[in-house]
Amino acid sequence: MPAPKKILIDCDPGIDDALALTLAHGCPALDLVGITTVGGNVSLELTTLNALKLREFLGFPSVPVVAGSAGALVASRIDASEVHGFGGLGAAVLPEPRLKATDGHAVDFIVDTLSASPGEISLVAVGPLTNIALAVRREPRITEWARDFTIMGGSYTRGNRTPAAEFNIAADPEAAAIVFGAGWTVNQIGLDVSLTALANGPILDRMRDLGRLGGELLIPSLEFYGMTTAHDGPAVHDALAVAHVADPSLFEFTPGVVDVETAGRFTSGMTVIDFNLRGRVPNANVARSIDVDRFWDLTLSSFAQVEARLP
Amino acid sequence: MPAPKKILIDCDPGIDDALALTLAHGCPALDLVGITTVGGNVSLELTTLNALKLREFLGFPSVPVVAGSAGALVASRIDASEVHGFGGLGAAVLPEPRLKATDGHAVDFIVDTLSASPGEISLVAVGPLTNIALAVRREPRITEWARDFTIMGGSYTRGNRTPAAEFNIAADPEAAAIVFGAGWTVNQIGLDVSLTALANGPILDRMRDLGRLGGELLIPSLEFYGMTTAHDGPAVHDALAVAHVADPSLFEFTPGVVDVETAGRFTSGMTVIDFNLRGRVPNANVARSIDVDRFWDLTLSSFAQVEARLP
Amino acid sequence: MPAPKKILIDCDPGIDDALALTLAHGCPALDLVGITTVGGNVSLELTTLNALKLREFLGFPSVPVVAGSAGALVASRIDASEVHGFGGLGAAVLPEPRLKATDGHAVDFIVDTLSASPGEISLVAVGPLTNIALAVRREPRITEWARDFTIMGGSYTRGNRTPAAEFNIAADPEAAAIVFGAGWTVNQIGLDVSLTALANGPILDRMRDLGRLGGELLIPSLEFYGMTTAHDGPAVHDALAVAHVADPSLFEFTPGVVDVETAGRFTSGMTVIDFNLRGRVPNANVARSIDVDRFWDLTLSSFAQVEARLP
Amino acid sequence: MPAPKKILIDCDPGIDDALALTLAHGCPALDLVGITTVGGNVSLELTTLNALKLREFLGFPSVPVVAGSAGALVASRIDASEVHGFGGLGAAVLPEPRLKATDGHAVDFIVDTLSASPGEISLVAVGPLTNIALAVRREPRITEWARDFTIMGGSYTRGNRTPAAEFNIAADPEAAAIVFGAGWTVNQIGLDVSLTALANGPILDRMRDLGRLGGELLIPSLEFYGMTTAHDGPAVHDALAVAHVADPSLFEFTPGVVDVETAGRFTSGMTVIDFNLRGRVPNANVARSIDVDRFWDLTLSSFAQVEARLP
Repeated sequence: MPAPKKILIDCDPGIDDALALTLAHGCPALDLVGITTVGGNVSLELTTLNALKLREFLGFPSVPVVAGSAGALVASRIDASEVHGFGGLGAAVLPEPRLKATDGHAVDFIVDTLSASPGEISLVAVGPLTNIALAVRREPRITEWARDFTIMGGSYTRGNRTPAAEFNIAADPEAAAIVFGAGWTVNQIGLDVSLTALANGPILDRMRDLGRLGGELLIPSLEFYGMTTAHDGPAVHDALAVAHVADPSLFEFTPGVVDVETAGRFTSGMTVIDFNLRGRVPNANVARSIDVDRFWDLTLSSFAQVEARLP
Repeated sequence: MPAPKKILIDCDPGIDDALALTLAHGCPALDLVGITTVGGNVSLELTTLNALKLREFLGFPSVPVVAGSAGALVASRIDASEVHGFGGLGAAVLPEPRLKATDGHAVDFIVDTLSASPGEISLVAVGPLTNIALAVRREPRITEWARDFTIMGGSYTRGNRTPAAEFNIAADPEAAAIVFGAGWTVNQIGLDVSLTALANGPILDRMRDLGRLGGELLIPSLEFYGMTTAHDGPAVHDALAVAHVADPSLFEFTPGVVDVETAGRFTSGMTVIDFNLRGRVPNANVARSIDVDRFWDLTLSSFAQVEARLP
Repeated sequence: MPAPKKILIDCDPGIDDALALTLAHGCPALDLVGITTVGGNVSLELTTLNALKLREFLGFPSVPVVAGSAGALVASRIDASEVHGFGGLGAAVLPEPRLKATDGHAVDFIVDTLSASPGEISLVAVGPLTNIALAVRREPRITEWARDFTIMGGSYTRGNRTPAAEFNIAADPEAAAIVFGAGWTVNQIGLDVSLTALANGPILDRMRDLGRLGGELLIPSLEFYGMTTAHDGPAVHDALAVAHVADPSLFEFTPGVVDVETAGRFTSGMTVIDFNLRGRVPNANVARSIDVDRFWDLTLSSFAQVEARLP
Repeated sequence: MPAPKKILIDCDPGIDDALALTLAHGCPALDLVGITTVGGNVSLELTTLNALKLREFLGFPSVPVVAGSAGALVASRIDASEVHGFGGLGAAVLPEPRLKATDGHAVDFIVDTLSASPGEISLVAVGPLTNIALAVRREPRITEWARDFTIMGGSYTRGNRTPAAEFNIAADPEAAAIVFGAGWTVNQIGLDVSLTALANGPILDRMRDLGRLGGELLIPSLEFYGMTTAHDGPAVHDALAVAHVADPSLFEFTPGVVDVETAGRFTSGMTVIDFNLRGRVPNANVARSIDVDRFWDLTLSSFAQVEARLP
């Protein structure tokens, strides 16, 4: 068995972020080396607090949690508390953490961590891309040092924050423009795919069987999450980005040129994705489909590992 | 049997425009009362010439053809000659017309015609919306005088001129903004639906059986049209808008708020469509699906009527 | 003495519009052949009513007044009633008119009038450019038929509606973009110059001596107008455009390329004026200065002519 | 005599940057504590090299020089080498430096330096605001730690890079938007004022008297600089920002709200400045005039100090 892949996650927990962290912790193919936080679904204070709560509840107290940017680079701050609850984890109530976040800033942590292990660490971003953009501008070589870079964000058809824009990109369009223009190839997993992997009734039943993990985190957060959607069950967007690192074969990708609209009256924060390259070098591998059954098998088996080792 | 519906078509022939006009002429449910032309797929000179050629080839010499706007309101002129051929009708070669266009300007003809028969005429626009926008600003009451108003244009997912914008809207975004903001309810048939009604092999075979109409117009234009697409066969976009007047029950619609992006770097000419009304009054009925089989039956039976009466 | 120049004025009275019309009527060098109205400083209903009132008060009942566009092409309607008063003429109270406006639409009147006398009529626009833009798009040849075309609008330094945009351009940026891009050379008189020709104390004194014209129109309107400004006296913007037709030698012009910003967050409606041509063909003669003393002499002597002939 | 003010300068030498550094070194009222560089007038490599050359030529080898951002946050890189020469110092040829730049990144140096002496250091930025924006987003408290913050950039009338935008802002509009929105009060010295303090003939004569400083740096750089301008002599933009720290009484300021246009077609990078506060809290003190004679006296006497101490 190959060594697990090192993974550094920039996130804004957030219900689906919580699932992404749970997956990263439980999946044998992954080695979670750090968590950085960004204001997004809820405020930076709350996303950081939630990361700390999750770290102790899920049981990986030695993994650093480092807080980053509170707001967007240029845009005004928006949040998604109507979807994630005012606290950010829906109806889940986790104990207050005993340990604090690591001193310093997420941007420095990202740069330093990738710099120390060039080519070894998969970088994953599942919130607004503020920290990643600042890190790229602060130290452009992180685009070479990261083993690969995967985001949950954007779409090539429709948005959720607006008809045109997905939340993570809409929350910081200029950061997204920086990140997509930084010279690396972004593995982009957007709404088009994430809305096909829903936590429907049977999936929720399998989670319900997971004891404390199911009863205290997964079910109360996802049932809250599901209330604001019109689908067959809540999507678990961010978890897909982590699953991609664990098993890229879950997805089909198409190379594309992703431009981020920063100037439109009705389209700011939209990822405009051209699959017709006409000689241009693509800046992204855009996920077009996911093997939903295998994704849930990976996710639920990883969750079971977490449940088995809960502190 | 009810009296046929009067229909006034603003168009830029164009291959699919040619099919739309053929359908309008042949369909017993429709009474074609006028054709206005606009620069679009090809130049105004050519779209007008093509309308004149089609009028005599198809056999409705008494229907007025009136030329209108050569270019967009504000935007720079674009065309689609790579899709429609330099002449605009693909590989179809029709005789030069003997009759000329009616004097005057399309905008005046639209205003005068609707004004003379308030509530009686269905207005259909299947090119850039320049003429319609000018008519609306010149005489706002045409929005009340038109029996209904149907366009082929835009989309709620992806474009064809750019990843975000469909050609007819991209060719004159400001005109589209005027038209969608004019106070009427636009029946919008966009790419999302038109790309589901393809002239595939069996359909082309049925057209091939149509004698001179098939051999001289339909097949040579559609086979050219199909060469630039990656689908199972060419779409016949504009024909759907005419079919909608003939039989609205072919479509399923959802009310929506359509905003036209005029300011974006990558999204100019995009129809941003919100189906989540939140108390807003919709400005459009947005086509979500079409009964493809019934559409082709209507179209091909109308084409057969035309063939039977060809001059 | 040469024959007086024929002048057609598109306006939105408006206090300074009223002075412009008074000047056009009184100046021996000018022959006022028509007035078209547009919504601007106040609503189209009021600008048309004011034009009708002024026609009878000033005494040119045979000059046609034709109403045009109520609102902007694309933009939302703004007005300047805080500057011109809710009625549009400040504190001036003129009798209700007995004669009505000419039937038809300003756009048609402009096209027909210029078409009937190509090369003979000076076109002047001192309100939002909606009518002119529609006329240009309806009949592009008016740009050849007009003897010359002068506007009051824009600036090359700062605005008045916003820090960047002058009111007439801000009220319909897309129309202005059409007009400046129509292929003629626009004589542009903007704020930079109009704010140098103020109706200061001595000027107001000379107006006060003008009997009924002074007492019933000039003084009560200008004193109201002056209340909202921080300058030494009110500017009489629109009058400068009429004065330019009467005597072009009043002004110094520089050729420039004028672009109208339609997309900015803070700059929509700004005229961005480049005097550094670098080989580009200028689309405007931009007024850089005015001989203020001669301007007021022309204006006040014309006003005296009007007073002498008041009905 | 009060202790000299500590000053940290972020710059892109650049001819006027060179004069700004010379002034900062020579002026008894100032204590230059650090220089950070940014890509701007020329590339980051060259602006850093020029800062190093100037440090040794002028004689302050112990002041740290730290390189920062090579390009803009979001925008594409532009430069001003046609104005500053391909090397960035016009026709001045300074010896290659023996000392290297300090390791680390300008953003960290700015944050750390201000953090170490809160309230003591005046921050001055005379290039594109990329480094300052990154520092503000990386550590928002620098807006409190800086004693004051002065920039050369923008204008409230016209630009120089484009008719609307001044070079430093045009080179990184998003950075400028961040910096003006960061919560501090920016002392803004723009083109409106800098173009009134020209190095005309008599000024150049006084510089020519300054021995090696005049003959090797000032004259050959300014004479090159002047070739591309149409004024009475070259402006020395950046030097004004340093002079402001030395003696704020040189300037008259008006509080204003500065918005940076990032979305316009013709206005990107424009500082849109509203002096009509209407209850809003100003984000800038905008320089409206400078005492030109006293400015040159301060500058030339400081230059004389430098000449007297040249290594």
